[in-house]
Amino acid sequence: MKKFLNTADTYLTDALAGFAAAHPDLSVNLESRVVTRARGAVPGKVGLVSGGGSGHEPLHTGFVGEGMLDAACPGEIFTSPVPDQVVEAVRAADSGEGTVLIVKNYTGDVMNFEMAAELAGEEGRRVETVLVDDDVAVEDSTFTAGRRGTGATLLVEKIAGAAAARGDALEEVAAIGRRVDAASRSFAVALTACTTPSAGRPGFDLPEDEVEVGVGIHGEPGRRREKLRPASEIVSDMVDAVLDDRPLESGAEAIVVVNGMGGTPLSELYLVYGEVAALLEERGVSIVRNAVGDYVTSLDMAGCSITVCEAEEGFTDLWDAPVSTPGLRWGI
Amino acid sequence: MKKFLNTADTYLTDALAGFAAAHPDLSVNLESRVVTRARGAVPGKVGLVSGGGSGHEPLHTGFVGEGMLDAACPGEIFTSPVPDQVVEAVRAADSGEGTVLIVKNYTGDVMNFEMAAELAGEEGRRVETVLVDDDVAVEDSTFTAGRRGTGATLLVEKIAGAAAARGDALEEVAAIGRRVDAASRSFAVALTACTTPSAGRPGFDLPEDEVEVGVGIHGEPGRRREKLRPASEIVSDMVDAVLDDRPLESGAEAIVVVNGMGGTPLSELYLVYGEVAALLEERGVSIVRNAVGDYVTSLDMAGCSITVCEAEEGFTDLWDAPVSTPGLRWGI
Repeated sequence: MKKFLNTADTYLTDALAGFAAAHPDLSVNLESRVVTRARGAVPGKVGLVSGGGSGHEPLHTGFVGEGMLDAACPGEIFTSPVPDQVVEAVRAADSGEGTVLIVKNYTGDVMNFEMAAELAGEEGRRVETVLVDDDVAVEDSTFTAGRRGTGATLLVEKIAGAAAARGDALEEVAAIGRRVDAASRSFAVALTACTTPSAGRPGFDLPEDEVEVGVGIHGEPGRRREKLRPASEIVSDMVDAVLDDRPLESGAEAIVVVNGMGGTPLSELYLVYGEVAALLEERGVSIVRNAVGDYVTSLDMAGCSITVCEAEEGFTDLWDAPVSTPGLRWGI
Repeated sequence: MKKFLNTADTYLTDALAGFAAAHPDLSVNLESRVVTRARGAVPGKVGLVSGGGSGHEPLHTGFVGEGMLDAACPGEIFTSPVPDQVVEAVRAADSGEGTVLIVKNYTGDVMNFEMAAELAGEEGRRVETVLVDDDVAVEDSTFTAGRRGTGATLLVEKIAGAAAARGDALEEVAAIGRRVDAASRSFAVALTACTTPSAGRPGFDLPEDEVEVGVGIHGEPGRRREKLRPASEIVSDMVDAVLDDRPLESGAEAIVVVNGMGGTPLSELYLVYGEVAALLEERGVSIVRNAVGDYVTSLDMAGCSITVCEAEEGFTDLWDAPVSTPGLRWGI
């Protein structure tokens, strides 16, 4: 294993300490493993909390800040945060207007966030949960019942975050988050496996001439292995998978995310985006907003995911709203 | 070679086409290989042009936009743009107030940008050149006489770009660009070699337990190979190399960039930043601004560079000024 680290055991803490040093406008509690805005909960605003296993940076800690999350609770690498940690995040985010939990659909996350929601409820806190389940690759998977939550998390956190920032009420913020998830579908392909610091070697073996089609963000198996083909063919299959699951009519508008998994250079992601744009144009779908870069990663995995979100009423205005986080920033 | 591409020959054009599709506020001429702001040169403003070999994305095309470059001229992968291409970029950037060329110190770039400056001069255009030569690893190298230009390019383009945006005259914009370069030093370490599409295999062999200390952004050899050590030791040597070359006194203020080479996940970059921050604090140096992410990459190389720029009078205000480019954005 070749990584910049001191020991596998201290990897996450050291990375969070560096994150804290780099972002003094955020507050990082290394003991409780909760990241919040340094100024705390925003009075009068619905709180937004997300979290999940680490290793998907900038998700979720990198999306804490004005216009997005109020708190993030990063678990160990590829491991759900524990309920107490989530409750701490809720306490930090809740100004009295209630809190929306954004949860990627993995069994451990769902269970621990549910337990946290109950505990927070017992403290008299109002909590709504938005489940993200956009990955069409497999119906059930290693860590999931139902579709996995992947790239759409960026869209849910940004758009729901903007809704909260403009003063929407708890149920409204949750509702728009759910609408974004329902309007989004994703599909990923891996060129290489990723290596967690604790395992010290790639999570699966992938021959030098093969790719994993439909891979999950922890390296979970996808639909099939196949020989590496030209990008145009790979991307065509990815777009088909996404649009077969949730068709878009000619004339529809979409927000598209081409997301790198951590080890793929930006020029390849742009190349993929060009293929996606051409394919959607052929189908009469207009891409009204896009994001190309690393947002929901899998440590050092080479690969990418494509997310297509139908741009329903109100989505683009909220996407465009000012945001200031380590991972996404404009207008501030 | 495992990459998202159609053919090695079309890699760059396809990537630029995708870049163009993703960024409608920029104009990409696929034939002349010049990227400009869609609205063209800004009347009354000094133009900023940069370029160099491709493969370092987001540099340089990703830094075209409000507050940074007016035009970029990307060469083939790891290959200088040709003089005619640079002249085209100068024509596109020049509103009549003159143009600053920001050139990384590689023999091919220096020669071709010099020739372009002469050609532009013959057209009656005023041109100033800022040479970026921040990499302290080696005095001469495969493609260089003198220090190589690497991570400081981000700082030069941002700070000089902001100076141009606020209305500084040609000589002033060039002068502050030169001051930023003079105040900056960088050092890089590679964990893996990168693979260009045309070569199809890693540019050099690096054993599984060794790192290249002082590597260049094209995979040029550095100072030595050594066994992989804990990040704290590697980073300590990197910071020593940077500060041995240009010492900072206790009480100094610095802007620090921890730059990923393309294949290294963000969590490792934050871990490295944490080590840098601790080391500078020990020396009494305050980090007043920082950037942690992929800015000046080497395709899929795993590795990172550290740039320390002494924050001289005026630098942080210009760093903080609004910017809107694909690779760097805030305030707009």
